Amino acid sequence: MNADLEQTLALLECGPATFNALLRTLPDAWTLATESDASWSPRYVVGHLVYCEHGNWLERMEWILEHGESKPFEPLNREGGRERLKTTPLPALLDEFAEVRANKLAKLRAINLQPADLERKGKHPAFRTVTLGQLLATWAAHDMTHLHQVSRILAKQYDEAVGPWKQYLGVLHCDGHSVKD
Amino acid sequence: MNADLEQTLALLECGPATFNALLRTLPDAWTLATESDASWSPRYVVGHLVYCEHGNWLERMEWILEHGESKPFEPLNREGGRERLKTTPLPALLDEFAEVRANKLAKLRAINLQPADLERKGKHPAFRTVTLGQLLATWAAHDMTHLHQVSRILAKQYDEAVGPWKQYLGVLHCDGHSVKD
Repeated sequence: MNADLEQTLALLECGPATFNALLRTLPDAWTLATESDASWSPRYVVGHLVYCEHGNWLERMEWILEHGESKPFEPLNREGGRERLKTTPLPALLDEFAEVRANKLAKLRAINLQPADLERKGKHPAFRTVTLGQLLATWAAHDMTHLHQVSRILAKQYDEAVGPWKQYLGVLHCDGHSVKD
Repeated sequence: MNADLEQTLALLECGPATFNALLRTLPDAWTLATESDASWSPRYVVGHLVYCEHGNWLERMEWILEHGESKPFEPLNREGGRERLKTTPLPALLDEFAEVRANKLAKLRAINLQPADLERKGKHPAFRTVTLGQLLATWAAHDMTHLHQVSRILAKQYDEAVGPWKQYLGVLHCDGHSVKD
């Protein structure tokens, strides 16, 4: 489907509440679990979402509106927020995600983008030319890739416990598809 | 990790609220979207979860407690509920999922299973011997496999819209792993 702005906003509005409903009441055995020693826990994923929300999405959009293709935006530090994560409880991270997302979406609405703005071009440090519409679609899809990741991390804790039912559970056959999932 | 009963219950308690937070306010363009003509929409997934909740999990557990391995339980009709889905609005399905899940978990708690009960054996129509513990772990993992599926269905609607960012979005490289995902 086309990335209609209102549809993108509708999905972005659901992100924080979805992670909150899934993770807030779970014991640490779930929220600190990983798929392997080097992989992320659900708690770490939420920290990453908070980190991205603070500077990666709306700010890149504003950068495109201001600089067009004349100046590439800063690369994302995918490990950003790691230090703060060590001391911030998960409920506080979930609250922060909801609050920052709401603020950013309010600002986005205030900018009152027009359909033609979605075609405006910017310069990604690795990909080179991207459009503002691609950036907004990626913001929404980024929530989904991390929801996909968290559902997999949680399910994999029961990889053995489900016994022969494993063959019916597609998530247990998912290896993540990308080092950057 | 071991499938501890309290941990399983904690995850099962989050399932309906998670799907509700993700899907209730989304427009039909998202909730009726599919990955291909023959694949499920998020709305259909919720209908499947409701259908399973009515007869697949607690009832199979009770079957094991009553019959052990002497009598296999009925196969699950994975397409069950399709007719009712055509007329039930998604919010009503989400409400029903929450209500039935809460009732079943209350009954499960009332049975007051002991650790030894998790080793009790039953007969699956296809796999033959399964344990009650495997059934409970599968109940929780089943929510996760469908959350994994729904996050993928939603993300794939923006497969083209994200442009070159696709390479960073693992969910867009997920093909589902299983015909029974």
